[in-house]
Amino acid sequence: MDKNKINFENKYQKFSKLWSPRIIAEMNDYQFKLAKIKGEFIWHNHAHTDETFIVMEGNMIIKFRDGEVSLSEGEMYVVPKGVDHKPVAKHECKILVIEPKGVVNTGDEIDNLTINEELWV
Amino acid sequence: MDKNKINFENKYQKFSKLWSPRIIAEMNDYQFKLAKIKGEFIWHNHAHTDETFIVMEGNMIIKFRDGEVSLSEGEMYVVPKGVDHKPVAKHECKILVIEPKGVVNTGDEIDNLTINEELWV
Repeated sequence: MDKNKINFENKYQKFSKLWSPRIIAEMNDYQFKLAKIKGEFIWHNHAHTDETFIVMEGNMIIKFRDGEVSLSEGEMYVVPKGVDHKPVAKHECKILVIEPKGVVNTGDEIDNLTINEELWV
Repeated sequence: MDKNKINFENKYQKFSKLWSPRIIAEMNDYQFKLAKIKGEFIWHNHAHTDETFIVMEGNMIIKFRDGEVSLSEGEMYVVPKGVDHKPVAKHECKILVIEPKGVVNTGDEIDNLTINEELWV
């Protein structure tokens, strides 16, 4: 039983690469991913799904074409499907992302930051 | 933009009833629900879906027919579909539950604790 328990901090200690989400669990066809972010990600959207961001530690901004939202620890935001967004963090920030299995981090954009494999931690 | 940002603590301050999950957001056909729990819930399962528990404050135990798992702040557990479970908390505990829209808190069991309406906060 206990082997399936997930401690976020323990998982974060197991990787350091920025902008490289690590899968920690699956619920039906959805995945929970931890990420460490710092700096600017690229503009992208996910045409077929909403995407949930929860800030676990630090602060981030999600930029939209017509504004932005600042998120701190204990705050969440659901980016609606198809909406262009660009995550940004001035200092390293730890987030939890929830989205369907198979979603690529950069959407349809191909970039150095694109991750096409399933990285578990 | 900011109106769609969710601050967990602000939301928790808006209700006090125990074992009465409040919806705070939707992602596709899934819902995020905050709950305050204390004491023992009933044995139940969800035949068609996994169910995710994240502890936001305090401690809880999820009992299973063949064991149990203790969860503290910053820990999560995905209860697989069809698996009998019974949430328990000695002291008041704040949790975040993630599951598909329409899932009833007591599964197929009908109890005083059953909530059949969509309660948002």
